Amino acid sequence: MNFSFEVIKECEQTGARAGVLHTPHGDILTPVYMPVGTQATVKALTPEQVKETGAQILLSNTYHLYLRPGHELVKKADGLHTFMHWDKPILTDSGGFQVFSLGELRKLSEKGAEFQSHIDGSRHCLTPEKSVEIQEALGADIIMAFDECTHYPADYEYAKMAMERTHRWAERCKAAHTREDQALFGIVQGSMYPDLRRESAKAIAGMDFTGNAIGGLSVGEPKEMMYEMLEEMDPILPRNKPRYLMGVGTADCLLEGVARGVDMFDCVLQTRIARNGTALHPTGKIVVRNAEYAEDFTPVDDTCDCYCCKNFTRAYIRHLIKANEILAATLLSIHNIRFSVRLMERVRESIIGGTFADLKSDFLGKYKK
Amino acid sequence: MNFSFEVIKECEQTGARAGVLHTPHGDILTPVYMPVGTQATVKALTPEQVKETGAQILLSNTYHLYLRPGHELVKKADGLHTFMHWDKPILTDSGGFQVFSLGELRKLSEKGAEFQSHIDGSRHCLTPEKSVEIQEALGADIIMAFDECTHYPADYEYAKMAMERTHRWAERCKAAHTREDQALFGIVQGSMYPDLRRESAKAIAGMDFTGNAIGGLSVGEPKEMMYEMLEEMDPILPRNKPRYLMGVGTADCLLEGVARGVDMFDCVLQTRIARNGTALHPTGKIVVRNAEYAEDFTPVDDTCDCYCCKNFTRAYIRHLIKANEILAATLLSIHNIRFSVRLMERVRESIIGGTFADLKSDFLGKYKK
Repeated sequence: MNFSFEVIKECEQTGARAGVLHTPHGDILTPVYMPVGTQATVKALTPEQVKETGAQILLSNTYHLYLRPGHELVKKADGLHTFMHWDKPILTDSGGFQVFSLGELRKLSEKGAEFQSHIDGSRHCLTPEKSVEIQEALGADIIMAFDECTHYPADYEYAKMAMERTHRWAERCKAAHTREDQALFGIVQGSMYPDLRRESAKAIAGMDFTGNAIGGLSVGEPKEMMYEMLEEMDPILPRNKPRYLMGVGTADCLLEGVARGVDMFDCVLQTRIARNGTALHPTGKIVVRNAEYAEDFTPVDDTCDCYCCKNFTRAYIRHLIKANEILAATLLSIHNIRFSVRLMERVRESIIGGTFADLKSDFLGKYKK
Repeated sequence: MNFSFEVIKECEQTGARAGVLHTPHGDILTPVYMPVGTQATVKALTPEQVKETGAQILLSNTYHLYLRPGHELVKKADGLHTFMHWDKPILTDSGGFQVFSLGELRKLSEKGAEFQSHIDGSRHCLTPEKSVEIQEALGADIIMAFDECTHYPADYEYAKMAMERTHRWAERCKAAHTREDQALFGIVQGSMYPDLRRESAKAIAGMDFTGNAIGGLSVGEPKEMMYEMLEEMDPILPRNKPRYLMGVGTADCLLEGVARGVDMFDCVLQTRIARNGTALHPTGKIVVRNAEYAEDFTPVDDTCDCYCCKNFTRAYIRHLIKANEILAATLLSIHNIRFSVRLMERVRESIIGGTFADLKSDFLGKYKK
């Protein structure tokens, strides 16, 4: 068995737990934040810089890699790990979320999703079987079932229909999956309807995937609504398997997610806002490009141990931003990833030490959402 | 004395020499290629990545830093070394070349150059005294006299006038220079006229600068013409002082320059073509973005020891280029700088070992200009 998940410690006051997920490319200590390398690179960083942040696993995108450079090319390169020079675990999504985000450019049917490439307008069809085929060619450690992600708000009928299709597609993905060195995770849908979320959690849990993901959240709904949905699913999803909340990554959501039993998270926010000149900070965010930091010769976050904070000042990074220098994106990406990775390291330690509830309330007390 | 230059070995067949330039921030082994960090950063690289290429000294630009973030801000940051987190030697140019490149946006007089900022159109005046003041605030190890760089072609009368003004400005820079921990280099001009080049070399040599730079070459003239000018100046410039050929950096020009007694070079080509998807190679250049490399799973240069060539393939880098990923610029910048630094390391070894002429002819035999 290439995969197994151990729960090391459970929090007594919340649903939080610390675990270890064993994969062919090494162990992942959970809870874990996964940086995103959409196009087989975490934007603006070398793999070594990503490793230095303490990142344990990367997420990469099936939709993007299928279109460019193509999964067959990645396969010829001996898979994504070799292609992008990353020897730790990788997770690929199914492409579903990206395809559904294309809006007018895609058409859904029971078979799958027909869509036009955002790059050159060429026509393609992504089905559960095709998604698995692509993900097997890419060769990530963890691959995802092809699901139908509902937008928000979605009416009940549509949400129910999309959820049921997601379940049928999940079965088809399971049937199509052949590689034993890859773990396939199912995805729970159900929009913001408690009964659908419970029904979906039960259905997906019943299919006995290696791990269970929660999709269709953090799509525009109020955070409290997301937390409520997590609470609906928490008692139903098996506690002996890893749970992955897709696309979630602000500090408050990470903490609230962990408190509701989530083990894995991914988010592009860390690197996206970095490229926009914004840094994560224990008090919330710092817009380093603002004039107030022009002569601020202190680090972005004086409590941070990252390469950016140890060696550079806000004034210097602001200069880089104003001068359109790439190094600004690199330094802030390093910091923002490290910020989230380190938060999860502290969360894990606190779960093991029995102080997670204190850490959470201390952190959120200072943090401006 | 903070500065001294030792010639370790001279080539018997050419004008090449190996030396050591001692500076407050460490020794520079010559001949040396200096990467350019125009706006207080080598584009797309962290200082650590630059160091890993073996770069011994960086060049930064007075014109750019004066306009943004301003030399007073850099001074408040404890100087350029601290500001940009680079603890090895730095050289700043005088701003002259950038101002003269502004064309219509500048007006010259004996006093100096009035110009409009390329950023916001604001009006400024750069004089020899102001250039030295800015460079003293920036705090580089080596600073340059403010000169008038002639475009190519230039008629004799204009070239002579600009040269004579350059000499007067050189005297003014010398008089204005106060920091003993900074070396001031003079700049020879004279366009492509042998008698002017000899006259300028004699005049600048007579002012007893710590080092002598050669300006106004590599401005569009045929390479043979540049080599001829170097040969005119070689016997006149003092051999016990470092010589710096400004703005020159293709492999053939580096070798031909060394053969004509040059010790220091700088060039933006390495990083500029990297951002454009082109890699330096022993056979010339490789346009990695070209379709022929789509499935080429070999390194950019299999003779290279850089981070890029040790870990990534042409196919992957081409993917990054096509996908507009910043990492392409980073990896190719690392390679291109390492390529030039390593060439100069080999040149130095060959001078010391008495085999420079062989290295030069072997290298140029395979190299397509």
